[in-house]
Amino acid sequence: MNSGTCDLCLTAGGPLIWEDAKRRVIYAEEAAYPGFCRVIWREHVAEMSDLSRQDRDHLMSLVWATESALRELMHPQKINLASFGNVVPHLHWHVIPRFVDDKHYPEPVWGTVQREGAPRIAPAIETLRLAIKERLV
Amino acid sequence: MNSGTCDLCLTAGGPLIWEDAKRRVIYAEEAAYPGFCRVIWREHVAEMSDLSRQDRDHLMSLVWATESALRELMHPQKINLASFGNVVPHLHWHVIPRFVDDKHYPEPVWGTVQREGAPRIAPAIETLRLAIKERLV
Repeated sequence: MNSGTCDLCLTAGGPLIWEDAKRRVIYAEEAAYPGFCRVIWREHVAEMSDLSRQDRDHLMSLVWATESALRELMHPQKINLASFGNVVPHLHWHVIPRFVDDKHYPEPVWGTVQREGAPRIAPAIETLRLAIKERLV
Repeated sequence: MNSGTCDLCLTAGGPLIWEDAKRRVIYAEEAAYPGFCRVIWREHVAEMSDLSRQDRDHLMSLVWATESALRELMHPQKINLASFGNVVPHLHWHVIPRFVDDKHYPEPVWGTVQREGAPRIAPAIETLRLAIKERLV
């Protein structure tokens, strides 16, 4: 079931990297955070505990594949993972490669700005797509 | 393997709610966030993709049980989940019941303060322990 007013039901939410029938990965397009991805469940569901155990595992397997692909392609200091949904109550996971010279490190990206943040280049969509795909097999 | 300088290796990290050989749940004791729990992996491991698939599922099953128990006991507007580890690179998940009148809503708890935040009472440790335990069976 979808909601007629939810952005993540009505649009992809950003440049599409990979998708199947139940889930997708997009680029979040946060200027200070190249490589920042969102993993989105297709159905309009608010909480992980609203999903069946099988669907939870299915969604998380794409989060882990995205994390692993970003680690290989970008070598971040840390990966940050978060699912809030306070504004858009439609399950989506933030998968964020973090670097010691980024805008908020070591704060969460929602915290206090620490510096301007070093420029960095995100992997090309096709490169990231292939890296995610091979981790899902 | 543990680290001799890591707080989450050396201490429980807060009042213990439930534990087994590989994982535990504690109260985070954040004054503005009654019910805020942390789910902590016992071994000193930084990233979810450093764990085996089986261990990842094992850790997340406790995150889901904690989320579900907090929903039943506190009826929050939303559950927020996050794993950062920028400061303490030892796998731990924040499980945070959020309410429309809490200190930062709808911002993440790491974001801009919105108001003083309504007082609220956390479940007793024993009550939460039993609710988590019955969801792990």
